[in-house]
Amino acid sequence: MEYARFAEVWRGPLVESVHFGAAAVANAEGKVIYGWGDTGIVTFPRSSLKPIQAIALVETGAADAFGLTPEDLALACASHRGEPIHTRRVAAWLSRLGLTETALACGPDYPSDEDTMADLIRAGTAPSRIFHNCSGKHCGYLTVARHMGWPFEGYREPSHPTQQLYLDNFSDLLDSDAHALPLGVDGCTLPAPALSMADMARSMARYAAAGAAETKRGAAIRRLHAAMRAHPQLVAGTGQPNVRLTQATRGRIIMKGGAEGYLVAFIPDQGLGIALKVADGNSRARMVALLALLRELKLLDDGEAAALANVAETPILNSIGTEVGRVRACHPPAADEI
Amino acid sequence: MEYARFAEVWRGPLVESVHFGAAAVANAEGKVIYGWGDTGIVTFPRSSLKPIQAIALVETGAADAFGLTPEDLALACASHRGEPIHTRRVAAWLSRLGLTETALACGPDYPSDEDTMADLIRAGTAPSRIFHNCSGKHCGYLTVARHMGWPFEGYREPSHPTQQLYLDNFSDLLDSDAHALPLGVDGCTLPAPALSMADMARSMARYAAAGAAETKRGAAIRRLHAAMRAHPQLVAGTGQPNVRLTQATRGRIIMKGGAEGYLVAFIPDQGLGIALKVADGNSRARMVALLALLRELKLLDDGEAAALANVAETPILNSIGTEVGRVRACHPPAADEI
Repeated sequence: MEYARFAEVWRGPLVESVHFGAAAVANAEGKVIYGWGDTGIVTFPRSSLKPIQAIALVETGAADAFGLTPEDLALACASHRGEPIHTRRVAAWLSRLGLTETALACGPDYPSDEDTMADLIRAGTAPSRIFHNCSGKHCGYLTVARHMGWPFEGYREPSHPTQQLYLDNFSDLLDSDAHALPLGVDGCTLPAPALSMADMARSMARYAAAGAAETKRGAAIRRLHAAMRAHPQLVAGTGQPNVRLTQATRGRIIMKGGAEGYLVAFIPDQGLGIALKVADGNSRARMVALLALLRELKLLDDGEAAALANVAETPILNSIGTEVGRVRACHPPAADEI
Repeated sequence: MEYARFAEVWRGPLVESVHFGAAAVANAEGKVIYGWGDTGIVTFPRSSLKPIQAIALVETGAADAFGLTPEDLALACASHRGEPIHTRRVAAWLSRLGLTETALACGPDYPSDEDTMADLIRAGTAPSRIFHNCSGKHCGYLTVARHMGWPFEGYREPSHPTQQLYLDNFSDLLDSDAHALPLGVDGCTLPAPALSMADMARSMARYAAAGAAETKRGAAIRRLHAAMRAHPQLVAGTGQPNVRLTQATRGRIIMKGGAEGYLVAFIPDQGLGIALKVADGNSRARMVALLALLRELKLLDDGEAAALANVAETPILNSIGTEVGRVRACHPPAADEI
């Protein structure tokens, strides 16, 4: 299990820190067409699985039964930063279900968006489950449970029908039994499956390609693609890297981050899926490595690469705002023509 | 330049993330007696150099001229968390110099202690240079400048006499010309020298042993040892790992963290110095790796190791406070008897 050298953090004339990682790129036939580091490394995609978890929300008819908008679907796939654009919608969604935040299985939190957090502290507002970055996903689970007539109670347990349905859907994309994957517990208390980088890339490639199918599944996944493409700021937050990537590629490439340095990206038009993990869990190396990989595979044109230059290599500022270093990608392995 | 596998972050049944690093242990004769990873890796000790930077403050007589207490000396060596115990003393020190926070070359910041930050936000207090974790060190530089009749202006420049004096003192410990070390710029705007893990361990071993010398230098370093030993909570913050280590070893082992996953530890009684760097800069692997190294070298007795068990292996909690994983050290290389 060898991680590769992904990115270097330079300070002045020298490398100060190094990030290792592993990434895999697969096509919808399940072939891994590119690897950076060991694509057999097994780890937890964490929130990068949310776009797959959300399939049930649309496919069961729950989303339509509760009048969910594309914005709500984006939030079901989101690790949001707790800005008002996120939390107002989550609160409204919960009340449409006749529920309050106590129904959410995630713990109370402050938003990860610092300005919003400061506003809330100033206003004397306590941490809330609605502010937790996973609150939209949890609303999705509760909506499926309500629509299917399943109990809300215990929806965080692996045995709950909502979790079983998620793993059924995941199995189709994985082309293998997802119920057999090892499980950890996620930060938001829900089951967290682990799988190899290669298998996650394959799953995302099939997820990318599935939107083209004229089936119920295809239609559901197509709606999720459209929601994430149209509302990347709801999937993460204002000005976040996924927003930049989606805008620069005019929605051609969609991505979803996960905790501990994970991310997935997928290209519906080409049926390609990418899974990427920074070994140490630090997100600062994640986009830098992804963009190096995309450039190496010629999956970004020159204009897109130029628009993303300051995501592909990011400055380190000191406390008076002077640039004193840079986070730079290492050279990924040479790619064959895709 | 190979980093070693230092620590694993487990989630349930599997490793989720991995931290790599390098460490060196040296004695005061300049011999590297132990290595974990490549001890030749050159990087920036950052704030781990503060105990060396503070030598001039005592040795020039500046500390006595301005009536500095052991608490003030601890703050000169500190990367403090901006709690009131830190910032009140820094503010008082500044006014003793007839200065205000505008004299500090570091930028304004909020304290890294979250409760203190929340209190300040609630009170409508803006970020301040006094809250910056390096403000004590900066007071030290200003005090030396005042005492020596040097200008305050430009004390952050490598050519300033305070910086030159620091590198003179550092050269004695390094047993080589510290003026020749490559320089970056630190987060607080001061020059940040880079050197190998081996050379930093050697410097800290000589710093450890120097306190025994009946010389002016020995007396200065002895006072700094005593200040850090007596007031570890001023060197970092309430309940921080350095406080735990110093308490558990009754001051036998003293440590100082630096940004980007660096730390030094030293044992005056044995004239030993340790330099340790987590490659990716994440501090969560730092104490875990240090304690594994100390145990392997039999530098902790059973009682000390037991008292530090929850620093040596730390839980990962989910958002409702349930333990869902652990940060665990990897096995360091086997040590010969020291």
